[in-house]
Amino acid sequence: MAINADQAHYLFNVMRLARGAPVALFNGRDGEWRAEVAEAGKRGGILICDRQTAPLRLPPNLWLAFAPIKKARTDFIVEKATELGAARIIPVQTRHTNAERIRQDRLQAHALEAAEQCGATAVPEVSDLTPLDKFLTSLEPDRKLMWCDEAMIGQAPALSGPRGAKWAILIGPEGGFSADEQQRLRKLPQIHPTALGPRILRADTAAVAALTLWQQALGDWA
Amino acid sequence: MAINADQAHYLFNVMRLARGAPVALFNGRDGEWRAEVAEAGKRGGILICDRQTAPLRLPPNLWLAFAPIKKARTDFIVEKATELGAARIIPVQTRHTNAERIRQDRLQAHALEAAEQCGATAVPEVSDLTPLDKFLTSLEPDRKLMWCDEAMIGQAPALSGPRGAKWAILIGPEGGFSADEQQRLRKLPQIHPTALGPRILRADTAAVAALTLWQQALGDWA
Repeated sequence: MAINADQAHYLFNVMRLARGAPVALFNGRDGEWRAEVAEAGKRGGILICDRQTAPLRLPPNLWLAFAPIKKARTDFIVEKATELGAARIIPVQTRHTNAERIRQDRLQAHALEAAEQCGATAVPEVSDLTPLDKFLTSLEPDRKLMWCDEAMIGQAPALSGPRGAKWAILIGPEGGFSADEQQRLRKLPQIHPTALGPRILRADTAAVAALTLWQQALGDWA
Repeated sequence: MAINADQAHYLFNVMRLARGAPVALFNGRDGEWRAEVAEAGKRGGILICDRQTAPLRLPPNLWLAFAPIKKARTDFIVEKATELGAARIIPVQTRHTNAERIRQDRLQAHALEAAEQCGATAVPEVSDLTPLDKFLTSLEPDRKLMWCDEAMIGQAPALSGPRGAKWAILIGPEGGFSADEQQRLRKLPQIHPTALGPRILRADTAAVAALTLWQQALGDWA
């Protein structure tokens, strides 16, 4: 297969791979393959696929929706969600969200890099910034929503149901959800308000903790 | 009570508090108190304690030991361990640890800041960099050790035992533990090797995931 200039730069300049060097490839459909550098040029190159080394491992049908925060912490959430096996990542705009827009392409590149790091064979899709209302309206009726609700601080986290079900995790902004938004959320038939321990967590910590709890209780950690 | 120049700078310049402004105070022994600014000066000030607003909430007897990694990720681990309720944070030096030394004072300041952010009334003690061997030798015999063992990837996390027991979580460096170190760990009577799902996690992700699992299974999240 031919590779483009960006990929060539990464493989041949950054990683300093030469002809004959082995490379692990994945495309989100065919699992992981071992390939070899056949041609290494400045503006491209050719890799020859040798054999499949891992099957396609799709993460569970779990989405992470979160209100973007400061740049470094938003990057962090995307990286962690990828490592912890979210299938889709949706930045949502809430009343108290600071961000007016996000760099979807940059976040998607972060997810790709994290997938490479953690040996995943699929990359979660990062959506563009989506208004909370639109996100809630577009949720399939059978997708449950784990809402990390600050009003429940101190209560035990409760998550149950069959493995393999469709879920989304919703993490609010630093200032919390507005009263209107909270009311809207409480009325959703598929809502599961969940506590995350007795201490107030930052939004990025809450995202990682919620993903961990979900994977352990309902996902592919068992 | 009198406050020093650093505290005065933070309260009166950064937070712009004036005489009569309310302040929440904690010292790790007496819970949280409401106080009022009685005198605000450039090099100090006086706060008058009014009433206790929260009892002392000590985290469970859980330590987090981890091999320090890049600066930003080490800071991050200290912040998250504080939010997630570790009582002590111990950077350990392993065969493949990159850091030769750490800035204990800076990490301790991070822990303090994180405790303030998350409404804790106690701050975990951050130790200086400790060789792994010394850390293991100094462990009390009744302190169990949750070892996030990369060899167990793909297995289900297993944590059980009575709540209230003494535990430590051990997170290895990016390069993993050496063969000698692994052998030493496997021989420890109090060792509990634990898996963290099917994907390879970065050290900082593993720390947050392990703290979450422990708090949920054995700590104060229930």
